Amino acid sequence: MAAETESWLDELKWDGQGLIPAIAQDEKTGKVVMFAWMNRESLAMTVEMGRAIYWSRSRAKIWPKGEESGHVQKLKSIRVDCDKDVILMSIEQIGGIACHTGRESCFYFELGEFKEGSQENSKHWQAVEPVIKSPDEIYK
Amino acid sequence: MAAETESWLDELKWDGQGLIPAIAQDEKTGKVVMFAWMNRESLAMTVEMGRAIYWSRSRAKIWPKGEESGHVQKLKSIRVDCDKDVILMSIEQIGGIACHTGRESCFYFELGEFKEGSQENSKHWQAVEPVIKSPDEIYK
Repeated sequence: MAAETESWLDELKWDGQGLIPAIAQDEKTGKVVMFAWMNRESLAMTVEMGRAIYWSRSRAKIWPKGEESGHVQKLKSIRVDCDKDVILMSIEQIGGIACHTGRESCFYFELGEFKEGSQENSKHWQAVEPVIKSPDEIYK
Repeated sequence: MAAETESWLDELKWDGQGLIPAIAQDEKTGKVVMFAWMNRESLAMTVEMGRAIYWSRSRAKIWPKGEESGHVQKLKSIRVDCDKDVILMSIEQIGGIACHTGRESCFYFELGEFKEGSQENSKHWQAVEPVIKSPDEIYK
């Protein structure tokens, strides 16, 4: 595919596995909704198709976000950081749900009681975002 | 240090190098300003001290953000994602500059002309954020 000869891809720093981290941020709300990885092919596809296509490390395959759920992430703009080793996408989240748990964002666990001097054993991760749609309904 | 016995740290999934990615998002503007890595100790310090402390992979040492520049990131809240393998911090960026290039955010390169059907060789990363303060002034 054309990705082989694209210089904007060559400029990026790929890790030892040929991957780059990618952050998805909702264009409207500004919420960071997801973090996943891309390889060269999936990033080229993301840009060509105008929607987030990740690389699933666990399944070792191209992962078009939303292929099962319909929760596609439409690409609005794409950035890279100063070191050119992290991607930041501004996206439109179709269905308003990015997480496989049926939440708007994957970042739904907040650390409670992190204030300095608080009892250490009182710190814990709390789910602070509602489930919008049950995973059973999403993945039929 | 106390980090050894903290269960909220045990709940996280650390990678093969004992690291976890961390995203810093400006509390006020919603901008994603930085991405770096933390090890167990630096994350424990981040929470204890209420400011972002990263692990520098290149220097292989604890990296208190802002120790030279003064551009400390004060921790406002801290989240983890559904897989418990990525950290998202809401921070107050002291000095309004997160990037070592003197920009507000490290994510200042935007891919131009990424629309489907555009000439492939017209795509390139453009710096789209101004330098607020010269690095020479920041790192004296």
